[in-house]
Parts: sequence; C-alpha cells; structure tokens
Amino acid sequence: MRSFDTLRALLEQRIATWCAQLPANGLYAPMGYIMQLPAKRVRPVAVLMAHELFGGDAEQVMDEALGIELFHNFTLMHDDIMDAAPLRRGRPTVHMKWDVNTAILSGDAMLVKAHRLMSADGRVSAIFDQRALEVCEGQQLDMAFEQRNDVTLAEYQEMIRLKTAVLLAGALQIGALRAGASDADVERIAHVGEHLGLAFQLRDDLLDAFGDPDKVGKQVGGDLRAGKKTWLLIRGTERAEQQGRFELHEELALSADQRNVPRMIATLRQLGVDREAEKEVERHDSAALDALEAIRVPEPRKQPLRDLADLLMARTH
Amino acid sequence: MRSFDTLRALLEQRIATWCAQLPANGLYAPMGYIMQLPAKRVRPVAVLMAHELFGGDAEQVMDEALGIELFHNFTLMHDDIMDAAPLRRGRPTVHMKWDVNTAILSGDAMLVKAHRLMSADGRVSAIFDQRALEVCEGQQLDMAFEQRNDVTLAEYQEMIRLKTAVLLAGALQIGALRAGASDADVERIAHVGEHLGLAFQLRDDLLDAFGDPDKVGKQVGGDLRAGKKTWLLIRGTERAEQQGRFELHEELALSADQRNVPRMIATLRQLGVDREAEKEVERHDSAALDALEAIRVPEPRKQPLRDLADLLMARTH
Repeated sequence: MRSFDTLRALLEQRIATWCAQLPANGLYAPMGYIMQLPAKRVRPVAVLMAHELFGGDAEQVMDEALGIELFHNFTLMHDDIMDAAPLRRGRPTVHMKWDVNTAILSGDAMLVKAHRLMSADGRVSAIFDQRALEVCEGQQLDMAFEQRNDVTLAEYQEMIRLKTAVLLAGALQIGALRAGASDADVERIAHVGEHLGLAFQLRDDLLDAFGDPDKVGKQVGGDLRAGKKTWLLIRGTERAEQQGRFELHEELALSADQRNVPRMIATLRQLGVDREAEKEVERHDSAALDALEAIRVPEPRKQPLRDLADLLMARTH
Repeated sequence: MRSFDTLRALLEQRIATWCAQLPANGLYAPMGYIMQLPAKRVRPVAVLMAHELFGGDAEQVMDEALGIELFHNFTLMHDDIMDAAPLRRGRPTVHMKWDVNTAILSGDAMLVKAHRLMSADGRVSAIFDQRALEVCEGQQLDMAFEQRNDVTLAEYQEMIRLKTAVLLAGALQIGALRAGASDADVERIAHVGEHLGLAFQLRDDLLDAFGDPDKVGKQVGGDLRAGKKTWLLIRGTERAEQQGRFELHEELALSADQRNVPRMIATLRQLGVDREAEKEVERHDSAALDALEAIRVPEPRKQPLRDLADLLMARTH
C-alpha cells in the first residue's frame, strides 16, 4: 500500500507515455493538452489505492486509472463548452484554443478511449457505464437548476452526488473489483467514495464563502456574487425565510456586480449556516471513514485512503 | 433468416419500448426525439441479419442492434451541431429544438447508453469501441478536409470508410460474433460491411449529381453547388487538370449562389467521371458480395443480406 504521492507519480508517468503516442491532429492533440494541465489526479489514484487496499498491485490497474482520468477530462472538456469557460487552471480551454466543434468531437473520442481502457472486464465496464451516465445526469440537473429558483437542499445534494461523488465511488469500485474484492466490500468502498465526494464538494462550497483567501487561492465569495445555488445559499435562504429575514433575497434580487457579498457572508454566519455546513462535511467524512472501517483487510493497508480523505478535507483550492 | 422488413419491424418495436420508458427531462427527451425520427435502420438491422446468417435468432441481439442505432443517432446529434444543421429529415435538429448544450450532453449520455448495451461481452465491447473511435476519426477528417483544397481521392475514400463504412462493418461483426461465428467469418462479414458502406456512400455522391430528381427526392447538385469535395469533384478536378480543362475550377472559384451547376454536371460527364464512379460502386458492391460468398453457411441464409445490398444500391435518397 503505497502513498498518494508515490501512486500519483506512477500515474503521471503513464499519462505522459500515453500522451506522447497521440497523433498530432485535431482529434487527439486536445486530449494530450487537457490531460497535461496541472491536476491532482484524485480519481485515478483512487483506482490504484482501492486496488492495493484489497491486496493488488497498482501496476495492474494503470489502464483503468488512466481511463477514469480520461473520462473526467472528457467531462471537463464538454462542461467548459457548456459553461462558456475561457480558462481552465489558468490556461485556455480546448474550445478556446481550438474551437467548439473540435472540443465536442475530441471529447467524444476521449469518452470512447476511456471506455476502451475498461472493456476487458464486463463488470468494470458496467460500473463505468453506470457512473458515466450518472455524471451526465448530474450535469443535466446542474444546468436545469440554473433556470430554477426553487431548488431544494435534497435536490442540490442529489445533483452534486451525481455530478461529482459517484465518479470517485466508481473509481474505488473499479480498483477494488479488479483486486477480487467481494460484492459487499465493493459496495462499502462505493460508500467511502460517495461520502468523501460529497464532503469534498460541500467543503468547496464552504471555502468559497468562509475560506481564507490566501489559502483558498482565489477570491472569496465568487459563488455568492454569481448567485450560484450552492448548499450554503439554498440552506441560507431556507433558514432566512423561517426567521423572516430577507437580506439574502434582497442581494439575490440585484445584479451580480451590485451584490454586497460581505453582507451575504455575514448573514449566512448569523443564520448559522456555516456551522451547519461544517457539520454536514463532518458527517459525510465520518460516514466515509466508517465505511472504510467496516472493510476487513489488514489495518495498515487503509492508511493511504485515510490520507486521501485528509488531503481532500484539507483541500485549499 | 428473416427479411429486412420483418427484422426492421421487430427493431422498431424495441426502439418504441425503449423510448417509452425514458424520463421526460432534458437529458433523455432528446434521445427519444431523435430515435423516433423516420429512419431506415440499416445498421441495426445489419446486426440482426448477421446474427441470423450464422444461425442465431435476431431476438437474442436486440440490445446490440439498439446500441448500434443509439450510437448512430448520437453521431447525428453531435454532427448536426458541428454542421450547424437546422433540420434533419424535415424536423428541427436537437440543438435547434432544445439548445446546443442540451444536444452536447444528451449526445454524450446516448453514447454511454449505447455502450451499456454492448458491455456484457468483452469482444463485442472491443469492436464497438474500435468502430466508434474510427467514426470520430472520420468526422475529424471530414472537418479538416473543409479547410483544404488538396484532398486526394485516397484520402477521401479513407474518410468515408471511417465516417460511414466501418459502422456497418461493426454492426455485422457484432451480430456475427454473438452467434459464435469464427474469427475468419467475422473478418469476412466486416469486409461485406465496409464494401457495402463504401458502395452506398459513393452511390449517394453519384445520385447528388446524376440522379433523377423525382427519385432522389431532393434537388440534384446540392453537393456541387456547395463545392463539397465528394468523390466526383475530387476525381473530376484531377482529370480536368490532366486534360487542361478548367470549367470546374472556374465554377469552384465562384461563390455557391453564382455557380452554374448544370455546367459542372455536364463537365463531369464529359470527363467520364460518372462512368468511373459507377464502376467504383460496382467494384465495392461485388467485393461485398464476394466476401459474403466466401462465408460457409447454407445459401438461403444469405438472401436477406443480398437483399440488403440491393436495397442500399437502389437507394433513391
């Protein structure tokens, strides 16, 4: 059971080799470009870690790990078109550097390539397809929510579960399956992934409003300024209505550049939404660790996954 | 070995059932819409026919046939975005009826759904992925060729092979594989598909210029007016240059609405390009039938595939 950094270095090597053999044309060059942007590689390393958790060698599932990262980058390439995002990690997005058609088609081919790395094992293939479809469903909900003002907390949680948590779950499941884990353990490791993914996304929402700008590495309050319906804002407006307070509603009625973000943050604090969100993060974090606890393998093998949880929880970007 | 019409009716039933259970949201509704536009269903019926050719029952590969048709419609959904096409079969395209983001995402999910119908059998999955990637490569070449004036006949043929012929080949391979055909026979049936696909596409090019407008069901010469580099125009300009004739070059130098299409057609005839293209169609048609000939199964079982070839060759659209 090797550490995150060791496994990540292995994976980066595999990605570099893979990118080096891509043909230099409009279908494949964008794949190499997006795959070589700086990235934490949490999902593919999760494949490797789950494999070693159940006694496997990470080297045996490098294809599956690469496939998970290709899939993740395919979603980024297409999401960036849908969001009309000009930059990703400070570099031009694929549809800006090339064009929209190239980003659509190269993304499609990336999805096929990702799948091809999974298809040797029917069970792996089935999990991959299920998770991939769920990610599409999550993205569809995310887009649909932009048009709605009545999104409930439960709906939001289901959206982020689908859009972000299930892929981490799928990565862990695939690594576990390929190491011969039992169905019950594959189920357990899926819970680890879903809860970690949810904790991670909620923490990200929290940091946007309450993080230390120096540590977060970006301007605080960006989601609030944009009026993005995150956990905080949905819960905040719910609680505000219960208490007959309308500061958040007043601010949301303004255009983004007119919004008083510090007033929104102060209101959320007064409503206790920050503490509530922190509790929710802890709840998911604990649930993840409990699920890991229930897996019967030698304890030291679990350490890398516990470290991964720490890494995700201490995430500053 | 049932006829095209019988198998197609079976398939339409399966498609209707599949569409009826789709959730009514922005991810799934566009799938139901595009899958229920009028269509010939050549590719999915090819799966069924190949299966019966090798002694199987079409009912056993309805999932794979549906998956092939889903994949085909995914390519249409995304190609229509890339081509900015407002209509498909006289109905609004998905990105016009909904929007571009919906068409991107729904197409992505359709590709995953298609795959999911293939993933029970690793060999089927592998063929599907290979063919799917080739189709993306063909589309990329098609887009790249629009920016070039020096596309050779060989390059054009490779593009249409990838963009259209390989999927028919893949459909036949998958049907054959699932009926337990030998590797050699799977190879033979792939040749049937590739040659039929090429013959079909070349015939389509031919009909655009030389077809009977009443039979073709659309205005003749649309590709020529658009200056689209089809087999005819590439071969025509090649031969014209050899003979020191520049009518085609003169017309291509004009804008589309200034082009004298009848003059282009007359020139192609004088250059003998029509007869040459017809020979090429016949060559691929014969090669397809020869490959079918070489497969050792009771002769009557081959009749539906011969009928399919006839249908494709007599195609009036």
